[in-house]
Amino acid sequence: MDRIPILKLGDFLLVTIQVDMHDRLAMTLQDDLTARVVQDKARGVLIDISSLEMVDSFIGRMLGNIAAMARALGAEAVVVGMRPAVAITIVELGLSLHDVHTALNVDKGMGLLRTLMEAAPAREDGHERHEE
Amino acid sequence: MDRIPILKLGDFLLVTIQVDMHDRLAMTLQDDLTARVVQDKARGVLIDISSLEMVDSFIGRMLGNIAAMARALGAEAVVVGMRPAVAITIVELGLSLHDVHTALNVDKGMGLLRTLMEAAPAREDGHERHEE
Repeated sequence: MDRIPILKLGDFLLVTIQVDMHDRLAMTLQDDLTARVVQDKARGVLIDISSLEMVDSFIGRMLGNIAAMARALGAEAVVVGMRPAVAITIVELGLSLHDVHTALNVDKGMGLLRTLMEAAPAREDGHERHEE
Repeated sequence: MDRIPILKLGDFLLVTIQVDMHDRLAMTLQDDLTARVVQDKARGVLIDISSLEMVDSFIGRMLGNIAAMARALGAEAVVVGMRPAVAITIVELGLSLHDVHTALNVDKGMGLLRTLMEAAPAREDGHERHEE
């Protein structure tokens, strides 16, 4: 397993994290995802972590980085499917996910992305995005 | 990794196969997926295999079984993201995927599912499905 697949869902990209992340896999994901945001003109990124039973500071930082990178490219990122135990760990570890939107599941995450997009249409123009 | 996550996308379920399948994981996936088709009243199942670089007869049989099970429950299954090398292997191994719909990617798979649903509205009534 050398890379995590990125699926295109209309205007959004979906990443399902199923395996333990290590440094190289995380770096590859960041590279692939930023490239795909540009290539597919994606307006949002959904990161599903429902398979993760535990997070550490490495994963937390990676999620924050991906969200910041997506935003820099004019897309929003939403982390979906967080387990209750993971939410507890994030708070107890003091991990800062303040830049990261979250939603209960993929459906609600897509709804959130659509709401965010309607609220900030100006961002697109600034990046010279065009509807097809 | 003891189970593969199943994501709900509107009326559809999405499974992304990223890891090597072994017997127990495949059985768990079949159990989980059939349960979720019923629970979520899903009308279609998308199975993304873009991470798989190779298939063998075990995976081929599993995909066929999942499609048949989904159909028995009133849903259609579409395998998406098959790599060219995998398509070659499937033909060369003589694997029968005649019951399995395929599409290039998730977007096209969802389009295919919608078309299939419009073509066969009678199936739903037979299963007493109701729109919400």
